[in-house]
Amino acid sequence: MTATWSPETGSLDITTLGRLYRDGSLTPSAVVEACYRRIAARGDDHVWIHLAPRETVLAQAKALEAKGPTDDPLWGIPYSVKDCNDVPGMPTTNALPEMEYWPETTGQAISRLIESGALCLGKVNMDQFGIGLVGVRTPYGACSSVFGEAFISGGSSSGSGVSVAAGLVSFSIANDAAGSGRVPAAFNNIVGLKPTPGFISNSSVSGGGSLKSAETMTVFALTTGDAVTVGRRMGGYDPTYEFSKPEADAVDLAIAPIPPRFRFGVPAGAALRFFGDVEAEKLFAAAVARLEAMGGTKVEVDFTPFEETQKLLYGGPFIAERAIAMDKVVAEHRDHIHPVTLSILETSSDHTAKDVFAAIHKVAALKRDTRATWADIDVLVVPTTPTIYTKAEILADPIRLNAQLGIYTNFVNLMGLCGMAVPNGFRPDGMPQGITFLAPSWQDAKVASYGAAYHAATGLTPGAAGRPSA
Amino acid sequence: MTATWSPETGSLDITTLGRLYRDGSLTPSAVVEACYRRIAARGDDHVWIHLAPRETVLAQAKALEAKGPTDDPLWGIPYSVKDCNDVPGMPTTNALPEMEYWPETTGQAISRLIESGALCLGKVNMDQFGIGLVGVRTPYGACSSVFGEAFISGGSSSGSGVSVAAGLVSFSIANDAAGSGRVPAAFNNIVGLKPTPGFISNSSVSGGGSLKSAETMTVFALTTGDAVTVGRRMGGYDPTYEFSKPEADAVDLAIAPIPPRFRFGVPAGAALRFFGDVEAEKLFAAAVARLEAMGGTKVEVDFTPFEETQKLLYGGPFIAERAIAMDKVVAEHRDHIHPVTLSILETSSDHTAKDVFAAIHKVAALKRDTRATWADIDVLVVPTTPTIYTKAEILADPIRLNAQLGIYTNFVNLMGLCGMAVPNGFRPDGMPQGITFLAPSWQDAKVASYGAAYHAATGLTPGAAGRPSA
Repeated sequence: MTATWSPETGSLDITTLGRLYRDGSLTPSAVVEACYRRIAARGDDHVWIHLAPRETVLAQAKALEAKGPTDDPLWGIPYSVKDCNDVPGMPTTNALPEMEYWPETTGQAISRLIESGALCLGKVNMDQFGIGLVGVRTPYGACSSVFGEAFISGGSSSGSGVSVAAGLVSFSIANDAAGSGRVPAAFNNIVGLKPTPGFISNSSVSGGGSLKSAETMTVFALTTGDAVTVGRRMGGYDPTYEFSKPEADAVDLAIAPIPPRFRFGVPAGAALRFFGDVEAEKLFAAAVARLEAMGGTKVEVDFTPFEETQKLLYGGPFIAERAIAMDKVVAEHRDHIHPVTLSILETSSDHTAKDVFAAIHKVAALKRDTRATWADIDVLVVPTTPTIYTKAEILADPIRLNAQLGIYTNFVNLMGLCGMAVPNGFRPDGMPQGITFLAPSWQDAKVASYGAAYHAATGLTPGAAGRPSA
Repeated sequence: MTATWSPETGSLDITTLGRLYRDGSLTPSAVVEACYRRIAARGDDHVWIHLAPRETVLAQAKALEAKGPTDDPLWGIPYSVKDCNDVPGMPTTNALPEMEYWPETTGQAISRLIESGALCLGKVNMDQFGIGLVGVRTPYGACSSVFGEAFISGGSSSGSGVSVAAGLVSFSIANDAAGSGRVPAAFNNIVGLKPTPGFISNSSVSGGGSLKSAETMTVFALTTGDAVTVGRRMGGYDPTYEFSKPEADAVDLAIAPIPPRFRFGVPAGAALRFFGDVEAEKLFAAAVARLEAMGGTKVEVDFTPFEETQKLLYGGPFIAERAIAMDKVVAEHRDHIHPVTLSILETSSDHTAKDVFAAIHKVAALKRDTRATWADIDVLVVPTTPTIYTKAEILADPIRLNAQLGIYTNFVNLMGLCGMAVPNGFRPDGMPQGITFLAPSWQDAKVASYGAAYHAATGLTPGAAGRPSA
């Protein structure tokens, strides 16, 4: 079977490639050739902001092959990087071409990938400056979900999600303040690992990101196992980055069997909202039933403190943190910034220092209010998004619909939670839906393990290969 | 010897009282009688804002005796409470009499003391709203150091420090944002336990305190052992208080032997400043020599990040946190607020939300910059204060000299550190000096253990009983 890996359709999951590399039936350069053919075959899909020259990556692959495989699980594995991260030898634009620069260095997380022998094919599209959950706020053209050209890919890590789901790379590195590392996973039938803030250092992210004190690097992959392999390789304390946490070195990110009986929380009552998407509602009900069949007991939890925190992320003074980096950019590049993004950035200046401390106190109180809930459950399970929208819908109502997409993701980093977004199935129209497992700080291995068990139980084939036969 | 406990001079340390209570040679009511006689004998020392009626506390003591001693180490132990904390049945003023109210309830920490059978004699003086390290910013008259009427007691917990040092109570509960739980210990030859923020809940503090997100309740006592006994009784997670930390329940606050060889940090070079107090400088040099004799290796540490953080506490936007509670007070009570305090409170309004996030980023970076230092040492040792001033000096130059007193204390809570302030000896003029052991969050038992070993090594008798025979 290993001999039948197809350049056109063969899975790029890390386990498969690693096995074929080490039994000698496949080489990194053959995979790189296949990736570039698949990329060319997709045409102008708006995924890439900078695609590395094929010959450059092929030469890197040949150099790896000349030395032979190492023990590193990422040896020879192709990946893409969201364009807010620095990769030496490639430009960084943050989806604003006028700001392009060519970094000579990068941070610990990307450096570790480079050292691993993984092969970076390029930099991928995103909502400008990482602001948005939609993927359409970019001058490079809007990506689509791999399941429907009319639908958004999700964002802000749009190119990351699509490049993995379309089988162009094995994994993609992104970042996540409000849901950017989870929403594209839901809309493309793949996995998104959003670790505890401070586990994977943001020092590779240009400027540290938009919510520097709380956001985090993330990993998109075809399987939870692949996401964990990459996260484990990138994670750990980074003494160069002020919000990296020493606890990171104590994390043993690995998938373990889940217990035969467990308790999972779901938002109670009216907090479980789908904005009229009855098919998404049915899919989430099916997820609950599946978890119950797996040995889980459903616990309806008071979602109020999570909702209140969610509203604070962009409805309160926390946007001032983003303004530290962005005010200068707005001043210098106003005419080139995406109009929706500009309107958002211009709302950020009317908060006082007192407002910030009041909001910090409020988040602390809301976090306290969730402690009894966490003591009562093993994991919290939410829809990754309440629904999915078409590009046309988002273009017609860009701010409100974007905000609706974030009701299950916006609160997560402010509360220091970790999460694993996994596929959950398809609506009758063929569009995918996802769920996310959440837990308090440093329980990354636990959410990964629940995510792995759940994804296996769905029986879904990840990415575009998982397209419903209907 | 137990039979010879003297009502006039007998030590009120918890170990002594507990032993005498349980061998039947002393009763809580006899101790209460002695305390009130000592209080009367000191006359108008400005220690008390509210002294409980003698008959009330005597009745409480008799009620305890009627049931007999419990296993609680605080059974029948007399204490005082800084007037920013609520004690049911007593007024709270925060040293602004026009704001007096009589709380019907209090928070977890004080409630635990009440449950323990400890006896609260009253509420004690402080710099108004806890703002100051001097003890003179109060309409209730300025306390003096027990070693010199002309000298300040230290603050803001002035009455707390003096009530313990003068032998009026066994311990005192205070709070500490910038050094209020340490400076009076230094100026009165006693011990100040300043735990990791989040260990002892602030829910007993009126309004949560002036730096709600970082300040903490503290304990003044005659010995490190007593301070630990009280801190252990009060500490632990408090689900009603947003900045209480779940980690608090895992703290085992106890004194253990220190290792025979250890490494202690001291500020390097010019950072070790005494503002011309050569006797304080000699005393600190003697402390270093004593620690070396105890098996310690001195490590001169780069003090820059600590100094930079110290400057940020009151020189940056963090004062906006205080303004959340204080702006309303200023508006309503402007004419009654201490003029120095008012001038400080009126400086707090010109910071933006961006300033706060920039300062949060800076503190995170400075904290990161200390991690290599902490990895290289067991504890950091600093003078608790660089010197001591007279009341006349402070009145003549109230802001600048107060700031100078805080150079070794102001950074501690912002960095999440824990500390134990202990006596270090006397200048030739009879005025005491103290040192503080510091360590990162949750190493409370370690700083207590080093403080205990060091205090024992000095051979000093605590409090006013330790007055040099010269």
